[in-house]
This record gives sequence, C-alpha cells and structure tokens, in this order.
Amino acid sequence: MAGTNSALGRQDEGDLPKAASVILVHPQLGENIGMCARAMLNCAVTDLRLVKPRDGWPNPDAEAAAAGAVALLENAKVYETTAAAVADLDFVLATTARGRGMVKDVYTAEAAGREIHTRHARGVDCGILFGPERTGLENDDVALADAILSIPLNPGFSSLNLAQAVLLVSYSWLCADNPFAGEEIAPALDENEPAKKNEIENLMTQLQEELEKNRFFRSPEQKPTLLRNIRNFFFRVGMTRQDVRTLHGIFSSLTGKRRDK
Amino acid sequence: MAGTNSALGRQDEGDLPKAASVILVHPQLGENIGMCARAMLNCAVTDLRLVKPRDGWPNPDAEAAAAGAVALLENAKVYETTAAAVADLDFVLATTARGRGMVKDVYTAEAAGREIHTRHARGVDCGILFGPERTGLENDDVALADAILSIPLNPGFSSLNLAQAVLLVSYSWLCADNPFAGEEIAPALDENEPAKKNEIENLMTQLQEELEKNRFFRSPEQKPTLLRNIRNFFFRVGMTRQDVRTLHGIFSSLTGKRRDK
Repeated sequence: MAGTNSALGRQDEGDLPKAASVILVHPQLGENIGMCARAMLNCAVTDLRLVKPRDGWPNPDAEAAAAGAVALLENAKVYETTAAAVADLDFVLATTARGRGMVKDVYTAEAAGREIHTRHARGVDCGILFGPERTGLENDDVALADAILSIPLNPGFSSLNLAQAVLLVSYSWLCADNPFAGEEIAPALDENEPAKKNEIENLMTQLQEELEKNRFFRSPEQKPTLLRNIRNFFFRVGMTRQDVRTLHGIFSSLTGKRRDK
Repeated sequence: MAGTNSALGRQDEGDLPKAASVILVHPQLGENIGMCARAMLNCAVTDLRLVKPRDGWPNPDAEAAAAGAVALLENAKVYETTAAAVADLDFVLATTARGRGMVKDVYTAEAAGREIHTRHARGVDCGILFGPERTGLENDDVALADAILSIPLNPGFSSLNLAQAVLLVSYSWLCADNPFAGEEIAPALDENEPAKKNEIENLMTQLQEELEKNRFFRSPEQKPTLLRNIRNFFFRVGMTRQDVRTLHGIFSSLTGKRRDK
C-alpha cells in the first residue's frame, strides 16, 4: 500500500512484513493518540483505527504530539463501534492486564508478535485493541477479540500509559522479525581497520627498546615473562591501526619526557 | 538488597535476576526522570543513577511524574561525572542511535538484555548509559562504555523520548528471562471447564432429534455426512460446559419458537 510506505518515511519498504492494525477504543486525550502514532511509526506499524475518540476527530492536540508521525493520524480511520473497527479483520487481540475470566488464549506481547507474523504470512489480517486510559477495554470489547494480549510486567507495578503499551506491543511485533536489527551484535566499523600483526610487533619492538633503556627488566630471568605478558595484552585487546599509532605516540612522548629529566 | 525488593512493590522478589543500573547523563526535565523511574519499575529494574541533572536534585517534577515509582527516585544516586557514576560497574553499555564510528561492539536491545543476564550470572555488574533529551550522549561519555546499545527501530522514524528508550531497553532485558511471563501462551482459565465428550454428545442428540422433527435431513443418504459435519464442528472448537448449556438453551428456544408457528 503506497500510503503505508510513505508513512514509514522512506521509499524502499515494499518488503516490510505487514503489521497489525492498532485500534484505540474510546481514547480520551489527543496527546496520547499522537504519542501512540509516534510509537507505532517507530516500529513501522502504520494502520491506526479510532473508535469514538472522546474529543472528536481530527484533534489538534493529537497532531501536535505526533510530530513526525502526523501522516498516521491523517490516514487514521474513525469508527462508531469496536465491532465496525474490526469488521474487516480476521484475527483480533485484546490488550488487557489480565485474562478477565474469559475463555480465550492469553498471549504475551512476544508470543503475539510471532503469531501476527505467522498469520499475516498466511494472508490473515490482524488487529490489536487497546482500551481507554484508566479504565481499559470493556468486557464487551474483549468479547469481540479472538485472544487476549497481556504484557508480562512486574506485577507489583504494571501500569503503563496508553502510548507505552502501544510501544511495547508494536516493538514486540517488530522484534519477532526485525528487518532493522541487522546483525544482533554488529562488529566494529570497517573504517576502524584492525592492526596488522607486524604493526603490533613493531609497537612491541619500540616499547621493548624503551623499556630496556629505562631498566624496566630488573633481571634477565624476568624479561621473557614480562614481555610475554605485554604481548598477550596487545594481541588480545583487538587493537586498530589507530590504536597502534596512538600508543607509538604515547611511548615516544613518555620516553621523551624521561630523557628531559 | 532489601531496598530493591521493597521498591518492586512486593515481598517475594528475592530470586529475581539482577538488573543493570540505569544511568541518566545530564537529564533535563524532571518529568522525564519520573517517567524513566516508572518505566524501570514496570520491568523490575530499580537502580537509578543520575549524572548532574539539569534542574538539581531532588526534583518535585520528577516525583510528581513517578507516581508509584517514587521509591526509585528516593534511592537514586547522584554523581558529578559519568566516570564517577560507572566507577563501581564492570560492563557498561552506551545507548546511542548509531555506532558513532567508535571501535566498540554494537548490541541490539535484545542482545544486550541477554548479555546482561549472562554477565550478572557471572557476578559482573552492568550499567546502561542514556544521554540527555535531544542531544543524546556525548562522545566522551560513550568512550567510557564497553559497548554500544542501539535500539533497532524504523530508520525512517527512530526518535524516542528518554522514558520510552528506558522502557524498551528495560523491557528487552526483562524479556530475556521474564519471571512474570508464565507460559508464553496461557490456556483458558480453569474455572471455564472444558465440556466432557458425553456432554457434547448429549447436545448432538438433542440437536439431531430436533433437526429430524424439522425435516432438516432431506435424504437418508445425506444424513450421515451432515451429522458428521456438525459433530466435527462441536468437537473441534473447544467448547466449555457453559458453551454446551448455552447451546442447549438456544436449540430449545429455537425449536420452541418453531412449534409456536
């Protein structure tokens, strides 16, 4: 969908996995709606649906809070009822703190994220319901959902504001198959070339000469052990060419100072 | 640590894994510090450290925003320099949007969460640096860290506010070994007992009798197939005892109506 791609702020998102629709039921503060739009766009989630926002629609407070995510608000669809907002969806999750005693599977945010990827890959359209600030979803809204989504937080302090809940749920979906993560742990950048072994050896040579001049090696017996310790250190720490140049400079400077004494 | 446990809002957290210290470097708005404390406590992260907060400390705006997480602010330690704030830590991550061209490993939030669990299990104390609103960490602060932590978000819109960054990083740590998640997908609650097979069969019997009265089975050849389709449905959908009672009532009511015609 072209609108979705441009809302992502770049032109090359054609192969991004499809995200769930985010459905805010009776949201109260425009500022929170704007912050939800930002949280969604952070995670490349773009289909925002609103059920009877308290202060009407459009809402200038929402636009002010959305900052760079205003396109999501402009594309947002507004519905009179929750049933209408989910009518074209196939699999709907209701975000609640607890299972509410209903006969529905309860997904963690992570399990829900994986489930949505799996279902979308099969052509199933998914949506996630979020209730109003303070009160959360009513049971009649939860009854419209296929399953419960519960964010597993510290039970001693689990209250989140609306935009934070949208952020964690959206991020959990993103992380289930994150095209922006690249390598899980990226190595140091290419421009910082690792030092060649002979460059490290040249550094060792300079250091050893200086240390000998300064009578660092108190006895001939100690010398091999001390040199091995130093060499182990230099070869272990993953020095770059820049590191080697820096250390040459340090050693030169230090020995220069000592000669001045 | 007793203070940590009581800050979690419950008494039985003795076996919770140890979290990283959260170090806010030069935070500007008190409200954001309070929201960071909430985000931390949501995820059972409790050691908050502040480096030269702009508006001094303590800060009434922070307390107002922290709501139920005020204990974290009261226990927060304040430092003059980033170096002092990390002095007693062994492994420090710097949260930045990009690798900054420094020779450091770059962890995603998820990889960092796992790494912190692994290192804490070996007795290594970890901390995570967050820079000031707008500007982020200065290079001199990043230089004090062992590695970079970068949250992998939509590159077309990756700006997060400070508390949201703390929330995602804390939650990623929590999710790496979450004692609050229980089963990834929790089954329906026990109080909603599944129906016994014979209860479903009784329902089938009632339905079949009513359908025969109403000449639903147009030909004897069709009857076994139609009954099998119905039975397949009833046994497949995972009915509870309550569902069976509800359907008995529906069938009785429908046939009662039909008799009245």
